[in-house]
Amino acid sequence: MFQALPSKATVVEVGPRDGLQSEPEVVPTAAKIGLIDRLSEAGYRHIEITSFVNPRWVPQLADALAVAQGVRRRPGVTMSALVPNMRGLESALAADIDEVVIFAAASESFSQKNTNRSVAASLETYAEVVRGARAAGKRVRGYVSTAWDCPYEGAIDPVAVERVVHALLEMDIYQVSLGDTIGSTTPRRVQGLLERLLAKIPEPAIALHFHDTRGMGMANVVAGLDMGVTTYDSSLGGLGGCPYAPGATGNIASEDLLYMLREMGVETGIDLDKVIAASRFVADALGRALPGRYLRSHLARV
Amino acid sequence: MFQALPSKATVVEVGPRDGLQSEPEVVPTAAKIGLIDRLSEAGYRHIEITSFVNPRWVPQLADALAVAQGVRRRPGVTMSALVPNMRGLESALAADIDEVVIFAAASESFSQKNTNRSVAASLETYAEVVRGARAAGKRVRGYVSTAWDCPYEGAIDPVAVERVVHALLEMDIYQVSLGDTIGSTTPRRVQGLLERLLAKIPEPAIALHFHDTRGMGMANVVAGLDMGVTTYDSSLGGLGGCPYAPGATGNIASEDLLYMLREMGVETGIDLDKVIAASRFVADALGRALPGRYLRSHLARV
Repeated sequence: MFQALPSKATVVEVGPRDGLQSEPEVVPTAAKIGLIDRLSEAGYRHIEITSFVNPRWVPQLADALAVAQGVRRRPGVTMSALVPNMRGLESALAADIDEVVIFAAASESFSQKNTNRSVAASLETYAEVVRGARAAGKRVRGYVSTAWDCPYEGAIDPVAVERVVHALLEMDIYQVSLGDTIGSTTPRRVQGLLERLLAKIPEPAIALHFHDTRGMGMANVVAGLDMGVTTYDSSLGGLGGCPYAPGATGNIASEDLLYMLREMGVETGIDLDKVIAASRFVADALGRALPGRYLRSHLARV
Repeated sequence: MFQALPSKATVVEVGPRDGLQSEPEVVPTAAKIGLIDRLSEAGYRHIEITSFVNPRWVPQLADALAVAQGVRRRPGVTMSALVPNMRGLESALAADIDEVVIFAAASESFSQKNTNRSVAASLETYAEVVRGARAAGKRVRGYVSTAWDCPYEGAIDPVAVERVVHALLEMDIYQVSLGDTIGSTTPRRVQGLLERLLAKIPEPAIALHFHDTRGMGMANVVAGLDMGVTTYDSSLGGLGGCPYAPGATGNIASEDLLYMLREMGVETGIDLDKVIAASRFVADALGRALPGRYLRSHLARV
C-alpha cells in the first residue's frame, strides 16, 4: 500500500458552489464574498465560487455575477464557476471568471432528470461552451457525475464513464473530476475505474469528487492516493450536507481531507486552521453548525 | 493496493458497551437486552455486551449482571464484557459471560488519568484477571488504548505500543485490539504500526478499534484491510458519538463498516438491514437519531 503516495496534492474547494447550492438557506452575497476571500487567504489555489445557471434552478446562487466581481483576486488563485450553456458562458465571461466548469453525467437517466437532456445532447452543448471558453482564453474543467452509481439506474458501466471522460477531454479541457454523486462507491471500485482510466489518460487530467453520504469519503480518497491521483474536490466543513436533515448527503469535508493529507505527508499548501475559521464564518452566516467531523471535533476541543 | 484483501472479516459489535457507556442517557435494561438480541439475530458472532466496572464510574452499565443474564445465548455467538479487576471478574463469571475483555493503555498518562494506575500496575492486575478467567475456561481479549496518540502526551512511541501488546499476548489472551482512542490516526500510521506488529505476531491476534472523531475511521479500516487484518470493532449507528454535542466522538459506525466490507467483497455473515433495525431500536430507546452516516442516508431513503 501507498507505493505511489504523491508528495503533493491539489484540493479544489467547492463549498461556495456545490455546498451553498445544496443549503436550504440563501447566504447573503457579502457573506459569500467574505467566505471566498477567507478561502483564498487560507492558501487554496483553486476555488469553485459560484454557478452561472438559471437562478430559477438554483436561487441560492442567483448572485453569481456580484460574487465573482466582489471577491478579491489573488495571483495564482483560480476562481472557477459552473456553466451549463452558452448563456451561462456569456455571464461567466462578463464576470471575468478564471475558469469554466462544465457538468456532464455518465448515466443517461441522471442526465435526463437532472438537466433535461441526453448525455449526447449535453456533450454537444458543452463542446460549444468549451470552444467559446477556450477562444476567450479560459481553462475548462469538467465533471462526470454518476461515475460509479446513479440514483435511477444503479451501477454505471465503467465503459460508459470512460466514453464520457474521453469525450470531455477531447474538447480541450484540462481535467475531468469523477463524481460519486450519491456517495455509494467504495475503495475497490474507485481503484477499478482509475486503473481503467489511467491506462490511457495522464494522471493530472483526472480528479476525484467524493461524497460522504455513507461515510466512504476518506476511504475512497485513500484509494485515489494509492493510485497516484493528486486532485481532490471537497467542501469546507462538509457544507451542503446537513447533519440535522435525515437526507444528509454532501461533499467530503475539506478539514477531514486536509488533516488526512497533512498527516500522511502529502503537501497542499493550505492552512487547516484558516479553513476552520472560514467554516466558522459560513456556519455563522447559515446560523447552524456544519457537519464535518474534523471541524466538529476541533470546535469541541478549543 | 488491496493485494492482500481478506475474503472474510470479523466485526466485533461494541455498541452495547462502548457505545452506551458514552451516552448521557441510561438505557433501560430491557432495551439493552432487546438490542443485544437483535444484534445476535443480525448475524454477529461477537458482541461486547456490557462492562463489570464499578457502577460509580459507569452508571450507564450498572445493570451488567441483569443484561448478561437476560440476553438470549446463541450457539456460536460470543458475548463478552469488560472486566477491570478481580472483583469485576467475579461478577463476570457469576453472570457466565463467554469472554473477558481487559483494557490496557500504551500511554502512561492515559493509564494514570483513566484508571488511576500505571501501565505496569494495570498489567499486573490484568495478569491476575487473565489467570482467573483462563482457569474458569474463558477466552480473554485485550484492548490497547492510545495505540497511536494520547490526549495528554500526543504521539505514542510504537515501541511502547509493541511492549504492551506483547505483554498482553504473553498473558494467554487470544487477541489484542489496537484502539485509536482519540480518533486521530491516519492510514499511513496505521500501516506503520501494523507492519511492526505483524512482523512478530500472527494476524488473527491483532484487531483494530477505530474512532471516527476526525472522519478517518473508514480510511483507517482500508489501511488495515490492505495489511490483511480481519477483525474490526464498531458500534451500531455510531452509538456513543453524538452528532448534536460539539464533542462528537466515538466508534466507527457498524453500518458504514459493513457496507464497505460488503461492497469490497469481504464477507462478514452479518445482515446490514438487521443492524439498521437494531440501530433504529436503540435510537428509539434513546429518543434521538444516531450519527452513523450510512444509517442516516438509509433512513432518508426509506
